[in-house]
Amino acid sequence: MRNFNETTITDAVLERIKDATDPRIKEVSEALVRHLHAFVREIRPTQKEWEYGIDFLTRTGHMCDDKRQEFILLSDTLGVSMLVDAINHPVPEGATETTVLGPFFVQAAPEKDSGADISGPMEGDPMLVTGSVSTVDGQPLAGAIVDVWHSDDDGYYDVQQLDDIGDLAMRARFHTDANGRFHFWSIKPAAYPIPHDGPVGEMLEVQGRHPWRPAHVHFMISAPGFEQLVTHVFVAGDKYLDSDVVFGVKDSLIREFTGHPAGRAPDGRMVERDYFHLNYDFGLKQVASSARAA
Amino acid sequence: MRNFNETTITDAVLERIKDATDPRIKEVSEALVRHLHAFVREIRPTQKEWEYGIDFLTRTGHMCDDKRQEFILLSDTLGVSMLVDAINHPVPEGATETTVLGPFFVQAAPEKDSGADISGPMEGDPMLVTGSVSTVDGQPLAGAIVDVWHSDDDGYYDVQQLDDIGDLAMRARFHTDANGRFHFWSIKPAAYPIPHDGPVGEMLEVQGRHPWRPAHVHFMISAPGFEQLVTHVFVAGDKYLDSDVVFGVKDSLIREFTGHPAGRAPDGRMVERDYFHLNYDFGLKQVASSARAA
Ligand SMILES: [Cu+2]
Ligand SMILES: [Fe+3]
Ligand SMILES: [Fe+3]
Repeated sequence: MRNFNETTITDAVLERIKDATDPRIKEVSEALVRHLHAFVREIRPTQKEWEYGIDFLTRTGHMCDDKRQEFILLSDTLGVSMLVDAINHPVPEGATETTVLGPFFVQAAPEKDSGADISGPMEGDPMLVTGSVSTVDGQPLAGAIVDVWHSDDDGYYDVQQLDDIGDLAMRARFHTDANGRFHFWSIKPAAYPIPHDGPVGEMLEVQGRHPWRPAHVHFMISAPGFEQLVTHVFVAGDKYLDSDVVFGVKDSLIREFTGHPAGRAPDGRMVERDYFHLNYDFGLKQVASSARAA
Repeated sequence: MRNFNETTITDAVLERIKDATDPRIKEVSEALVRHLHAFVREIRPTQKEWEYGIDFLTRTGHMCDDKRQEFILLSDTLGVSMLVDAINHPVPEGATETTVLGPFFVQAAPEKDSGADISGPMEGDPMLVTGSVSTVDGQPLAGAIVDVWHSDDDGYYDVQQLDDIGDLAMRARFHTDANGRFHFWSIKPAAYPIPHDGPVGEMLEVQGRHPWRPAHVHFMISAPGFEQLVTHVFVAGDKYLDSDVVFGVKDSLIREFTGHPAGRAPDGRMVERDYFHLNYDFGLKQVASSARAA
């Protein structure tokens, strides 16, 4: 195999990978080569543009460390993360819709009892979050694990300001009670721009795009026999709901964070300032195998 | 724009980049989104496979430093570099065909006079290289700059063993004489595997591919008013000519490195060992603008 030109090179590469060690690797490699070559043939890059592409990918890789994942930001901002999410999470009637995980999830957040205030040292408008977890038929799920995390009222997560605040805050892990319910206090989050001081920010800028996400609270909910739910609840009325830089907004995930005057809150706590209340009732989908067994 | 599913997400991203700052950026971004999404829709990656992809790209980026360009290796081994080369270098009658630059080119190699021995401290079978540079009509080009570089007889370049050999070797820059000719001595290069201890090596392995390139000498030739020529001359009979890992071989670039007994060589030098002789006559293409002016 020699003498490849603009049209024969693709078959040459496909021929070379025909003995891949695994059918799935072969399938993915073949599709990658076909689409990558089709992309290159369509745009007909100059040598300089190809060099820019190599440099962009290299800088994206160099931007990644244990606190920053620039390739996930690239996947998110190109709509790939939401596409992969859609492919993997068809949502039956009664199940909560999914959205991106985002880069600020932390394994093993502190476990808290229902009712805890997780705002730590952060100041802002108090927010009461109440919710329930149930099956798609509305059967409450007791003991479900509910991970929550959100930004402060400037749009920053705890992990972005650990040097200042010293410890994780605005994130915790709860367990649902016998009625499938949980609740907690924190501060109301704000909209925020994704980190845009790297190659992805450079891409957004030349593409004429802003880097903002509408305000939201992240939830990751697990229960044995059910598919893990990764989602957000968005604050109704946020000005970025229609232009989320990562394409994550779904109507079913938007809720009013309703304002209440200072006084006794629904959970019995006396609140000395006006506060907001968010309620969301989550529906979990059974895992495919246990659905078949049922 | 909200509520994107597997099919609507692509249009949503395209809509978002419609105000790109530059028509070329818009064109490239749109093509990237369409082909990337088509690739993802075709392979339907699991969340785990998507994570593998993110991790593969991240490790590829982390492997890049001032001595190693893993993304170029990825481009080379997926046939993208040769595709970009084919797009940018249509070859008129009489012009030498092009091939990949490869990762071992060094800016500002030592300038040498024609006839120099550039093997430095390296040992191996002596090799005499003679050649000429002319226009596609056969007019000799005097004063053309001829950069050459090649591996040793174990397949390693000087830059891969600088700690041991102390200085550049087996590379130099020559100028053609009044007849457009140049010649030099060195040692005969061997086939070599591209660096395969990183993510690209991992990819080649699971794709069932070897990492070898057939033995070759690199040439980069420039003359005012002519397109820079980046090419190799391959050693006839090499067992990897039909399976070059970067798809770079063209029949017109293969030459016998003919064996000769010790004695007086064509350039008048007395050689005490058997040696090899390579001759290649290069043809340069005028740059488009100067062709129009002619
Ligand atoms: Cu495609
Ligand atoms: Fe977030
Ligand atoms: Fe080489």
